[in-house]
Amino acid sequence: MIRRLSEAERRDWLRLARAEAVGPVAFAELIARFGEPREALAALPELARRGGRAGAVKIPSPAEADRELAAGEALGARLIAACEPEFPLALAALDPPPPILWARGQVEALARSCVAIVGARVASAGGQRFARGLAAELGAGGHTIVSGLARGIDAAAHEGALPTGTVAVLGGGVDDVYPPEHRGLYQRILETGCVVSESEPGRAAVARDFPRRNRIISGLSRAVVVVEAEMRSGSLITARLAAEQGREVLAVPGSPLDPRAKGTNDLIRQGAAVCEGAEDVMRALETLRGLREPDAEPFRHPAAGADQALRNRVAGLLSPTPVSRDELVRATGAPPSAVFAALVELSLAGRAELLAGGLVTQG
Amino acid sequence: MIRRLSEAERRDWLRLARAEAVGPVAFAELIARFGEPREALAALPELARRGGRAGAVKIPSPAEADRELAAGEALGARLIAACEPEFPLALAALDPPPPILWARGQVEALARSCVAIVGARVASAGGQRFARGLAAELGAGGHTIVSGLARGIDAAAHEGALPTGTVAVLGGGVDDVYPPEHRGLYQRILETGCVVSESEPGRAAVARDFPRRNRIISGLSRAVVVVEAEMRSGSLITARLAAEQGREVLAVPGSPLDPRAKGTNDLIRQGAAVCEGAEDVMRALETLRGLREPDAEPFRHPAAGADQALRNRVAGLLSPTPVSRDELVRATGAPPSAVFAALVELSLAGRAELLAGGLVTQG
Repeated sequence: MIRRLSEAERRDWLRLARAEAVGPVAFAELIARFGEPREALAALPELARRGGRAGAVKIPSPAEADRELAAGEALGARLIAACEPEFPLALAALDPPPPILWARGQVEALARSCVAIVGARVASAGGQRFARGLAAELGAGGHTIVSGLARGIDAAAHEGALPTGTVAVLGGGVDDVYPPEHRGLYQRILETGCVVSESEPGRAAVARDFPRRNRIISGLSRAVVVVEAEMRSGSLITARLAAEQGREVLAVPGSPLDPRAKGTNDLIRQGAAVCEGAEDVMRALETLRGLREPDAEPFRHPAAGADQALRNRVAGLLSPTPVSRDELVRATGAPPSAVFAALVELSLAGRAELLAGGLVTQG
Repeated sequence: MIRRLSEAERRDWLRLARAEAVGPVAFAELIARFGEPREALAALPELARRGGRAGAVKIPSPAEADRELAAGEALGARLIAACEPEFPLALAALDPPPPILWARGQVEALARSCVAIVGARVASAGGQRFARGLAAELGAGGHTIVSGLARGIDAAAHEGALPTGTVAVLGGGVDDVYPPEHRGLYQRILETGCVVSESEPGRAAVARDFPRRNRIISGLSRAVVVVEAEMRSGSLITARLAAEQGREVLAVPGSPLDPRAKGTNDLIRQGAAVCEGAEDVMRALETLRGLREPDAEPFRHPAAGADQALRNRVAGLLSPTPVSRDELVRATGAPPSAVFAALVELSLAGRAELLAGGLVTQG
C-alpha cells in the first residue's frame, strides 16, 4: 500500500527498521501483521520474549530516531520509506525491500530506468574506458547508471554518466565517502544524480555493510553489467543477487589470458548475456520480463500469534541449511500466518535468521 | 555399407567423384540408386540428357583416373573412399560425406577423436600462444588437432599438436603447401600426423576450394574451437558448418575493444560454448550428442527413374531460395525415389543444385 508517512509515523518506521534483530524480512512481516510500525513496536518485546529471548530487545528511542532524521536533514538528505511513492519501484519489488533508503542529491534520478555497471577495483585502462563509454551511452539513452563509488570500474561508470545523472550506493552513511580520493567525484555525482544508503548518516562502512550495499545496487537496477571481475569478487556477488532478483545480468567478455576476465567469462558461461556495448544492454532491457510489482496490500496476514508448541516445532525444523517458509508450513501443517509469526518471534530472539526469497536458517 | 574397394572399383569411384556436375549429393544419390559406381557411370550420359543437358557430360577416362591415383601414390598419399573402413567416421556421418579423401602422412591420426582449432590469419601473439597451448593440452589428452595450415591461429594450433599428431586440411592437393613459408611446418605435420584434401594431387588451391576445405575441417571434428575471428571471416563459416553438422562449437572470448574478438564474442552470443582452456573442450565433448552414424544400407532407393513430366514439375518448383527435398516430395505427391532421381538428372544438366542437408536450389 503506497502512502506518505506523517512525521510521527516516519519516526516509528525508522525505529522499527533500526530495532535490534529486525531485518528486512521481519520488518515486512511485522508491518504485514500489525499494519502500523507503532503497533509492531509495541508488540516487539513480547514477541521476542515468546521467541525465547532472555534479555530485552533493543529499540531506538524516539529521540534517537529524531537524531538520525536530523543528521540526514542537516546533510540535505531525505529518508524514503519503502511504502512511500518516491521509493524506487524496482527496489520496492524486492522480497523483502529494504525498509528505508537515505538519499542525498537529485532524488529524481532514481525514478528513471536504472542500469548498474560494476566491476574490478584494480581495473585495466581498457576496462575503465569501456565502462566510461558504456555509461555515457546508456546515460544519453535515458538510463540512470548505478554503481558503488569504488575504485576502478565503479568510478569510471559514475564518471561516464555524470552529464546525465548517476546513483552511487554506499555501505556507510550517505556522507561516508570511501575511498577518500573520490570526494571530488562524490560532489559531482550530487549535482546531477544522487547518493543513497540504507545506513545511518555519519556511519563509516564496515565489511558487513557491503553485501547489503550490493543488494541495493542490483535491486535498484533493471540490468547489471559486470565489466572485468576476478573469480570470487564482490561484483560476482552483485551479479548473483541480480539474477536472484530477476534482473538481467550482462558481462563483458575478455581474453582467457587476462585474469580480470575470469569472472565475467564465467558469468557468460553460466548464462549471462554478452555485453560488447550499449546496444547489448538495450536489447536485454527490451526482452526483460516485467519487474514484480510490490504487494498492493501488505496487510496480507490476519493478525495471528503462534503458540509455544508451534514455535518449538518450527525451531526444531531449522538448521544451518536454508529452508523455505513454504516447506515449514507444509512440515508443520499449521496456517502460514502462524508459522510466519513463529518465525518472526524466533528471529527476534536470535533463534532463526530470515533471508531474502522466503528462506530461513537457524539463528 | 562399409567395404574395401578393388582397384577397378576405386578407379570408377574416383571417376564418378570427378565427373562433371556430380557433387557429393548427386554422388550419394547415384550410389544409392545404382549400387556400384560402374553402373552409375554407365547411366550418367542418359540421366544428364533426360535432365535436359544439351552437350555430353564430361567423365574422366579410366586413364585420367589412373593418372590421379599414380600422382597421389608418388607422393606416398592414399585415396580413401567414403565407403572404406579407414574413412573417418565423423566425416562419413555427414549428409552427404565427401566421396573421397586424399591423405598423406600418418593416416591413423584420423582415427582418433578430432578437435578443430581455427581462427584469424592475422592473430595476436596472445591468441597464437593460447591456440598453441590448447592444442598441446588437447593433444596430450588423446585428441587429434585439425586445422587449415593457414597463417596465425591455424599454424599455432598445428605447432602445439606436433608432438601428438595433427591433421592439416588443404584446399588444393595434399602437396599444395600454402602459404609457402609453412613448408617446414607441413613436413613436420607429416611425421606425426597427416595432410588431407578432397582435391587432386598437384592442384593449387583457388578461392572456391576453401568452403569445401572448411566443411572437411568441421566434418572431421567432434568440436570446433574458434580462437580470434573478425566478423564475416572464414573461421565463422567453419563454425556455422560445424553447428549445421551437429558438432560442438566453442569460441574464445575477448575484449570488446579487440576487433579480433568480435567474431568469437558473437558466436558466444549465438550459443557457442565459452572456451578458456582444454577443460572447456573436454566438458563439451563429454556432453556431446553422438554423431549420426552413416547409413548402414546405402541402397535405400529402389532403382527408379523419373519421367519427363515429373522432371519438369520438379524443375518448375525450384528457385534461388533453397527448398528441402522433402518439400518437393510433398508438393509433387510423387514417390521420394522418383523425385530424387529427377533432381539428380536436373543437377547433371545444371538445372538444379543439390546442397548439403537435403536442400535444393535452381541450378
